[in-house]
Amino acid sequence: MKEFDAGRPAALARAVSIVEDQRAGYDELLTRLHPRIGRAQRIGITGPPGAGKSTLTTQLVAEWRAAGLRVGVVAVDPTSPFTGGALLGDRIRMERVALDPGVFIRSLATRGSLGGLSAATRVVADVLDAFGFDRILLETVGVGQSELDIARVADTTVVVLVPESGDSIQTLKAGLMEIADLFVVNKADRPGADRMRNDIELMLGMRGGLALADTPAHHGVELGAIANPGKAARQAAREVQSDRWIPPVLRTVAAKGEGISDLITALDRHQEYLVASGEQQQRRRARWREQLIEVAEQRIRRRVWGHPEIREFIEANLPQVASGETSPFHVADELLRRAAGILTTVTP
Amino acid sequence: MKEFDAGRPAALARAVSIVEDQRAGYDELLTRLHPRIGRAQRIGITGPPGAGKSTLTTQLVAEWRAAGLRVGVVAVDPTSPFTGGALLGDRIRMERVALDPGVFIRSLATRGSLGGLSAATRVVADVLDAFGFDRILLETVGVGQSELDIARVADTTVVVLVPESGDSIQTLKAGLMEIADLFVVNKADRPGADRMRNDIELMLGMRGGLALADTPAHHGVELGAIANPGKAARQAAREVQSDRWIPPVLRTVAAKGEGISDLITALDRHQEYLVASGEQQQRRRARWREQLIEVAEQRIRRRVWGHPEIREFIEANLPQVASGETSPFHVADELLRRAAGILTTVTP
Repeated sequence: MKEFDAGRPAALARAVSIVEDQRAGYDELLTRLHPRIGRAQRIGITGPPGAGKSTLTTQLVAEWRAAGLRVGVVAVDPTSPFTGGALLGDRIRMERVALDPGVFIRSLATRGSLGGLSAATRVVADVLDAFGFDRILLETVGVGQSELDIARVADTTVVVLVPESGDSIQTLKAGLMEIADLFVVNKADRPGADRMRNDIELMLGMRGGLALADTPAHHGVELGAIANPGKAARQAAREVQSDRWIPPVLRTVAAKGEGISDLITALDRHQEYLVASGEQQQRRRARWREQLIEVAEQRIRRRVWGHPEIREFIEANLPQVASGETSPFHVADELLRRAAGILTTVTP
Repeated sequence: MKEFDAGRPAALARAVSIVEDQRAGYDELLTRLHPRIGRAQRIGITGPPGAGKSTLTTQLVAEWRAAGLRVGVVAVDPTSPFTGGALLGDRIRMERVALDPGVFIRSLATRGSLGGLSAATRVVADVLDAFGFDRILLETVGVGQSELDIARVADTTVVVLVPESGDSIQTLKAGLMEIADLFVVNKADRPGADRMRNDIELMLGMRGGLALADTPAHHGVELGAIANPGKAARQAAREVQSDRWIPPVLRTVAAKGEGISDLITALDRHQEYLVASGEQQQRRRARWREQLIEVAEQRIRRRVWGHPEIREFIEANLPQVASGETSPFHVADELLRRAAGILTTVTP
C-alpha cells in the first residue's frame, strides 16, 4: 500500500488486478481506499462498433493531459470468443498515450465474475479514483449488455453515433435514449451528420424535451412545440439548467481532433449540472447501494453455496430433482433455511 | 394448464412468457411441469455473426420435421441496443417454418433478468421440453458472453464457423474449443474450407485428440501423433466412442441444404455417446445444480433485498458510505446478519 500511496504505477496495476479478479484481500484493499473515492469525474463512452469511440477516447485523453489532468481509461470488453482479436488495433492505437505516466489504461474482459462486468468496472474505477486520477473514461466496445450497464457506473454517459447510424436510429432501443447525458455525432464531416443530429433531437423532443445544439455549451429546454428555437429559448435553457438536463447533441471529427474541446466543455457543464442539481449525489448513492447488495451477495455465494453442509445437501437432492420426483423449487426452500443457519453462525 | 396439457400453441406461448419474465406463479408452473422435463434433445448452436446459424437452424428444423419430430427453437439475443434490428432478417427467414404447428420459435432478449440470460434460456427450454418437443435448438447470435453460456444449457453444443473465420481461428478463445461437441464449417463451398477444417483439427489435436472428419458419422480418437489416420484409426475411433468424445468437424452448405443429414447423424451419435458414457446424466445434474442455486438466490433477492427492514437499513447507511466514513464491506456484514434473520422468519 505504501507503493500505491506513493503513486507507483506498478502498485496501481497490482491493485487493479486484485479488485478485478477479486483476489484474496480485495475487500480489505477497497476498504482502505474507500475514504479517498469520489474525487474523479467518471465518464462512460458507448456506441456501436466503428463509431470511433477509441479515437475519441484518445483525443479526450490528449486534451485532458494538455490541461495537466491525470486520466484513467477502462475499456470494457464483454469478451466475445469470436471477436476477441478485433479490439487489438484500437488498443495499439492507444499506446501512444499509454506511454505517458499520467495515463493508465486497462481492458476489462472479466467473464462471469461475481456481480458481472459492471461490478468489476465500478471497483476498478474506484481504485483509479483513489489513486488520484482526475478523469476516468469508461469505454465499452458496444456489444452485449455493457452499453446500458455503463450508465450505472459513470457520472456522465456519452453515446457516440456516426452519420451512417442514421438509418437505424429508429431501431435504437429506448434504453439508450434514457441513459445518454450527451450525444456525439462523430465522423461529422461525412454526409448525413446534420440529419443524424436532427433525428436524435427529434427523438429527444418526443420524450418531452428539445436539445439546442448550436452553441458550444449545449443546454436544452422543454420546448417540444417550438420548431425554431431562438435566442430567447436558449436563454430559457440556461435558466432551467439546474432543474433539468436535456442531452446536447455534439459533432466531432475525432480523427482530426475537431469538436473535442467543445465536448470537454459540455462534459464539464454536465458535471456542474450534476453537482448543482443534487443528481451527482443521487447517482453516487445509487452506485453504493448496488455495491452494498453486490458485496452481500458475493459473501453469500462464498460462505453459503461453497459450504460443505450446503454442497452435501445439494448433491443428496440432485438425483430426485433430475429424476423428476421433486422440483428445484421445493428443494430451494429447505436450502434457504440451511443458508440462513450458516449466515447466522459463520463468522465473517 | 389444461390448455397446455392439451398441446395448445397459445397456452405454450403463455407459459413461455411466464417463465421468461418470471411472472407470478412461474415457480408453481415449473414445479408442475417438472416431472415431464428431460425427454428432449437440447442442441446449442453458436458461432460468429454471418456464419449462417439461422440458415442452419432452419434446415435442421426442416429435416427433423420431415422425420416427424417436433422442434422448439430458442434464439438467444443478448440485446445490444445498437444491433437491435439486425436479427430481423434472420427471424423473418424463419417464418417459413414458423407456420408449422410442430415448430415453436421464441427469441429471448431478456435483459437483466434475475439469473441472467442463460437461466432464462434454461427454463424456457424446460417448458418446451415438458410440452413435448423432441428437439430443442438453442441458437445464440454470437455476441457477448452468450456463446459460452449456451454450453451450460445444451446437451450438445455445435460451433459454426465459415472458411473466412480461418484467419482468426488462432484468436478464438480457448473456451470455445472446450465447449464444442461438434464443429461445423458452413459455406464449405467457399475457398479455404479444407484449411479451416485442418486448422480446427490441429487445434483439437494440440489438446490431445485428433478428429476424423471424412466419414458421415465422425468419431475421433486420441491419436495426436498420427499424421494420416487411416481405416484402422477410424475403427479404433468407433471402439473408444463411449470412452471419450473428440469433436468432429463437419462441412455444410446450409443455404443449399448440403451436409444437413450428416450433421443430424452426428448429433444423434453425440446423443448416444452422452447416454452411453453417463455424461448426459452428469451434464443434466450440473444444470439442475445451477438452477437450484439460482432459484435460492432469486428468493434471497426477492425476500431479503426487497424487505422493508433491509431497505431502511441500507438507506440509513448510505450517507456514511458515500461520504467515505464507512465502507460497503463493513456495512455488508451487518446486512448479512439481518438477512439471515429475515430468511429464518419469513415463510415462503
